[in-house]
Amino acid sequence: MLEANGCVVILSGGMDSTTLTYELVAEGHKPHCLSFVYGQRHEREVELAKRTAEKLGLPHTTIDIGDDLKRLIGASALTGQGEIPHGHYADENMKLTVVPNRNMILLSIAIGYAISNRLEAVAYGAHFGDHAIYPDCRTTFVYAMQNVARICHFDPIRIYAPYLLDTKTDICRIGLKLGVPYEDTWTCYEGGERPCGKCGSCVERAEAFQDNCAVDPLVRSA
Amino acid sequence: MLEANGCVVILSGGMDSTTLTYELVAEGHKPHCLSFVYGQRHEREVELAKRTAEKLGLPHTTIDIGDDLKRLIGASALTGQGEIPHGHYADENMKLTVVPNRNMILLSIAIGYAISNRLEAVAYGAHFGDHAIYPDCRTTFVYAMQNVARICHFDPIRIYAPYLLDTKTDICRIGLKLGVPYEDTWTCYEGGERPCGKCGSCVERAEAFQDNCAVDPLVRSA
Repeated sequence: MLEANGCVVILSGGMDSTTLTYELVAEGHKPHCLSFVYGQRHEREVELAKRTAEKLGLPHTTIDIGDDLKRLIGASALTGQGEIPHGHYADENMKLTVVPNRNMILLSIAIGYAISNRLEAVAYGAHFGDHAIYPDCRTTFVYAMQNVARICHFDPIRIYAPYLLDTKTDICRIGLKLGVPYEDTWTCYEGGERPCGKCGSCVERAEAFQDNCAVDPLVRSA
Repeated sequence: MLEANGCVVILSGGMDSTTLTYELVAEGHKPHCLSFVYGQRHEREVELAKRTAEKLGLPHTTIDIGDDLKRLIGASALTGQGEIPHGHYADENMKLTVVPNRNMILLSIAIGYAISNRLEAVAYGAHFGDHAIYPDCRTTFVYAMQNVARICHFDPIRIYAPYLLDTKTDICRIGLKLGVPYEDTWTCYEGGERPCGKCGSCVERAEAFQDNCAVDPLVRSA
């Protein structure tokens, strides 16, 4: 449970950050929601983030990181260059979906947002399942960012990452208990109308629902 | 001395980063130069950064962080809102020139640039004189960023900040020895044609030249 006077949650519109937002609200917080446009293929996520914030009556801000930065971190399949690899997250070729230093850049901006708005914490849905491929999702990375956030301003900023040791299945279980409407989340790396069902992100999502003996509303409605 | 296969230097066009760039070249490096447009009043600095890179035959990239980010970190006198406080850096009212989390944001982007361009290090001219006012210029902040940069990607990125324990006077001494053309640097916080001579940055620059019994070419030409 987060103890802080005000927080901002990085709300991508995916399952993890949406679950985290619902959990924060269930704990009595009224987080500011912050979404980023960084040239990702699946900009639909940002629309869904907005919808979640609206449903929960939370303030929502979208930050477009600008064309120069999009080009910089655009050397990845995730952001429209190259083909999205299919298969499981643990596969070597999923490294193609790494966006150079994305999480440090986005966390830094979120910390700046917290400072500007006099909030004490940044909530962030990094989880265990990301670790194999993305160095900047690992626990040691988040701990190192927590260190730097404590001293980057006059007052310490806390990075709250409660799912750091949880799998997608764990997060899905939490969300199902909270009644998170998962039809309001998007996971697929492809930019299609429907989830492709084949990319690493789709595969992981399907596993999470299966493990919880639940049906993904996105797939049910397909 | 930096030992790395390729580096990017954050070149603002001020005295510190320009001196660092000349020093890296003197050490045999051919750094990529990276400048940021973040809505600072003194965009002249970026022009001067470009000039320095050209003179030294170095690649130069400017990253405009975009309007959303400019608004976010724009709650400061440095970026055009509010009056620039006059006086010495050590004064309490210089806190008005703090840009929320600027250095973490810019370092994160520079690290992303290093990763994208397969460079091993980010060189950064933070110095001791900044410490009193700016939490994100302090040694502990830079050490914490060094920690996170080591683990944010598959290969560690090094943050090289050789002036961390130096004063502006020390940096000026190094630059004068290297023959840095300080007329190619800009320090004043105001957006005027000439340095105002009154803002904290001008006062500190004047002290640095005085301490070295030297004349600032920007003032001489005034």
